[in-house]
Amino acid sequence: MAPNNDNDDDTSLEKYNVDWTGHYRGSSSIVVRPKSTEEVSRILSYCHKRRIGVVPQGGNTGLVGGSVGIGGEVILSLEKMNNIECYGKKDGSVIRADAGCILEELQNYAAKNGNLVPVDLGAKGSCQIGGNVSTNAGGVYYYRYGSLHANVLGLEVVTPTGDVLNLGYDPVSHLKDNTGYHLKHLFIGGEGTLGVVTKVSLRCPPLPVSRGAMWVTCASLSDVVRVLTLARTDHLNEILAAFEFMDRDVLELVRAAYPSIRFPLDIGNVTPATTINNDTIIDPYSILIETHGSDNNHDREKLESFFECIMEEGLVVDGVMAQNLGQIEDFWKIRELCNPATAAMGYVYKYDISLAAIDFDSFIHDMKVRLIDASHDQQKAASSDKNLICGNWGHIIDGNLHCNIVSPNSFERDSELLKIIDEGIFEEVMKRNGSISAEHGLGQYKNEYMTRIKTPSTLRAMYDIKRVFDPHGIMNPGKYLPEPSAESSPE
Amino acid sequence: MAPNNDNDDDTSLEKYNVDWTGHYRGSSSIVVRPKSTEEVSRILSYCHKRRIGVVPQGGNTGLVGGSVGIGGEVILSLEKMNNIECYGKKDGSVIRADAGCILEELQNYAAKNGNLVPVDLGAKGSCQIGGNVSTNAGGVYYYRYGSLHANVLGLEVVTPTGDVLNLGYDPVSHLKDNTGYHLKHLFIGGEGTLGVVTKVSLRCPPLPVSRGAMWVTCASLSDVVRVLTLARTDHLNEILAAFEFMDRDVLELVRAAYPSIRFPLDIGNVTPATTINNDTIIDPYSILIETHGSDNNHDREKLESFFECIMEEGLVVDGVMAQNLGQIEDFWKIRELCNPATAAMGYVYKYDISLAAIDFDSFIHDMKVRLIDASHDQQKAASSDKNLICGNWGHIIDGNLHCNIVSPNSFERDSELLKIIDEGIFEEVMKRNGSISAEHGLGQYKNEYMTRIKTPSTLRAMYDIKRVFDPHGIMNPGKYLPEPSAESSPE
Repeated sequence: MAPNNDNDDDTSLEKYNVDWTGHYRGSSSIVVRPKSTEEVSRILSYCHKRRIGVVPQGGNTGLVGGSVGIGGEVILSLEKMNNIECYGKKDGSVIRADAGCILEELQNYAAKNGNLVPVDLGAKGSCQIGGNVSTNAGGVYYYRYGSLHANVLGLEVVTPTGDVLNLGYDPVSHLKDNTGYHLKHLFIGGEGTLGVVTKVSLRCPPLPVSRGAMWVTCASLSDVVRVLTLARTDHLNEILAAFEFMDRDVLELVRAAYPSIRFPLDIGNVTPATTINNDTIIDPYSILIETHGSDNNHDREKLESFFECIMEEGLVVDGVMAQNLGQIEDFWKIRELCNPATAAMGYVYKYDISLAAIDFDSFIHDMKVRLIDASHDQQKAASSDKNLICGNWGHIIDGNLHCNIVSPNSFERDSELLKIIDEGIFEEVMKRNGSISAEHGLGQYKNEYMTRIKTPSTLRAMYDIKRVFDPHGIMNPGKYLPEPSAESSPE
Repeated sequence: MAPNNDNDDDTSLEKYNVDWTGHYRGSSSIVVRPKSTEEVSRILSYCHKRRIGVVPQGGNTGLVGGSVGIGGEVILSLEKMNNIECYGKKDGSVIRADAGCILEELQNYAAKNGNLVPVDLGAKGSCQIGGNVSTNAGGVYYYRYGSLHANVLGLEVVTPTGDVLNLGYDPVSHLKDNTGYHLKHLFIGGEGTLGVVTKVSLRCPPLPVSRGAMWVTCASLSDVVRVLTLARTDHLNEILAAFEFMDRDVLELVRAAYPSIRFPLDIGNVTPATTINNDTIIDPYSILIETHGSDNNHDREKLESFFECIMEEGLVVDGVMAQNLGQIEDFWKIRELCNPATAAMGYVYKYDISLAAIDFDSFIHDMKVRLIDASHDQQKAASSDKNLICGNWGHIIDGNLHCNIVSPNSFERDSELLKIIDEGIFEEVMKRNGSISAEHGLGQYKNEYMTRIKTPSTLRAMYDIKRVFDPHGIMNPGKYLPEPSAESSPE
């Protein structure tokens, strides 16, 4: 069977060849959109025999170039496999779906059954659950509901030889099934390099009956960390669902890009706001806290006592509690605009790192020092008068920092500058024993770091695993693992 | 280097050769007790070169014969590697420890830092964290805090070639590190067949400030399931920590084995207890519910409103709330006596299965019918007048049933009877799309089922993984995977 090139015309290939970032571009001339596991199996088997590279593609919303080709590979889009099949009608606590289901549709479906899909991220309107699983997506409720390694109960995957592996998916996905090896975890975050995830079953907790939120600002990151500790342990504890931080630099970009946006503290706040030209001065650090619980009164009491405590201890400059669901959404809107606001101002060098929360402060400081130097060099070279802007936000409760470096008014990536920033980030992360990828993954961007962050024996084991499933190396070639060097080759 | 046989005398081998069940017995004459990863590496490398079988051994508390040899393998005991190294002093939320640490000691250490080790089970006084990880232990708080796949942040493992793999353990274990492959999951529940887990880091949630508990009884399993659903979704939700059920059969064994034990409803209860000879009649099903929260008043209100609701809806026969921590411990004591009480009455055929909670009822019924037949046959053969007793308890909230079949007054395993019960359990589980091992694992007991529960391609992938790490098959031989047949051999 030859793969069926079912595109209407060539122009339609564009959306499959360019990803969300606009930066990563493949040159595939064939896109296949199978409608069943059986078709995926036939496609992979065909390509395996002929050594044809295959790039599995979900919503194409990744940030490391993992979902487009590096050359002319076949794109295998999962978009036509999008059935949702609920198991356990009584409580809907297990949801089973095809890999191509849009995350938001899955969320809506689960919500109708009173359940929450335990992964949520900005791209939910276009990302697919298979892509979420393959990239081990994190998101804003990770602290509360856990990783996909915690929540994926089963997978169906197709390996390059065309074998369909039923990894706890069929006929029923159990919360507990201790008949290993637990192979599904290789495909969670495997970025399509071992096979194609075709079906996913997820554990879904009950939809929270009560949602609360609070927006507070702090003068320093050490205060943010103390607020975080108090929220996690003493006050919000079991109702804490999200704890996000944003720094002034990124919120100034949000205000610049979306001038009509009202910030939570522009409206109702504890201390009178300082304003310049009618704009409230943005405090150094803003925190968005969300709670999920089952009793509105209890949750409100907890939030109020928490707020009193952090005010009394002088940890926050200002704060406001959401009075209704609409205000919670308004808070999140600001947080969600961080990403597009940076993108609106110029080319964004995006980083996604793990650090101990207490190290965020010195990391950001040291990166800014590096950027001042880089800006000076760049200005000399490009006669630009714009400094690089370093805007930071992220899931500080997970130790996950999204560090975004914006080159204002320049929408092209500068390869020289990229190298400088990449290396700066890498050094500052390593110095603090961090991880260079908290949730974005490796793709074709971070893969070259693997030899620097993994020991030779660990890397060798990874190559061995790759060979087990994909002996001809057809799956997502040129990504994830770097080309093996002599020393990391099999003995 | 020759492995150092550091036993004082031969008699001391007994405890390494016989496991907790007393049934599985190896004939090892060499036990090595390395004190460091380096020593583990040298031992494995030595055995690998000489094709000597090695059995990694933790607390020897497993139930499927995974931790003793099938013959004269070298026993590699982790008991001398038991340092606890806390990371993140500020909040102690990540605990790092050698594999040989006793679980309870780890729990106590974490508690001093205000944290909870997210795994807890009856054997905590002797089981080791490395064994917990290697067997993917579940336990009573699994629903609330998640599996070890969710909570293990990093592992250090040694493979048979002597390679030390640092799988997210050193230098810092991050909540998020998305630089895959996520190999640690192969060793979680790998039962020592791929290598030896030497170090473990775990995510530890805050120790609950407020603990509550309730003991209620139901007339039917369908009522138990309705109580469960209400607890999970509407009433206890985010504070629900454990939901255990016990049936009358097992509680009658507890009373018989421990006549002085007072049951919660013997003391204070809602409806006057019916008694016969001063013994309260035990209701058909008992439920132990525990809550973990951060506010005593809130939790008590939730428990009370929940109790009112289930009483009003007529779902429970009777119930009592624990008034203090001592009473919570008393409730758990009953639950923990289920295991020794069955063992005190005769040989126990132990099963640990996953089913949808709504299927527990018909499963138990159908098993009892099978057992009546088996008892009749056995009585004919053995002139015994004792019927087999089927006592059931378990983590019904996880769909996890511990089905224990006791052969009264006979403490020897009857191989004929074993075969009959094994097959009965297997058929009844398969009929309901269940799993034959929810948490106990495979060992040398369940491994032969693998060809019946995994597809050939999945099994083939497992053999391939095994060969990657353990090409000579020295690690825990004769366990986990069955001997490969011709059809499951590599192509």
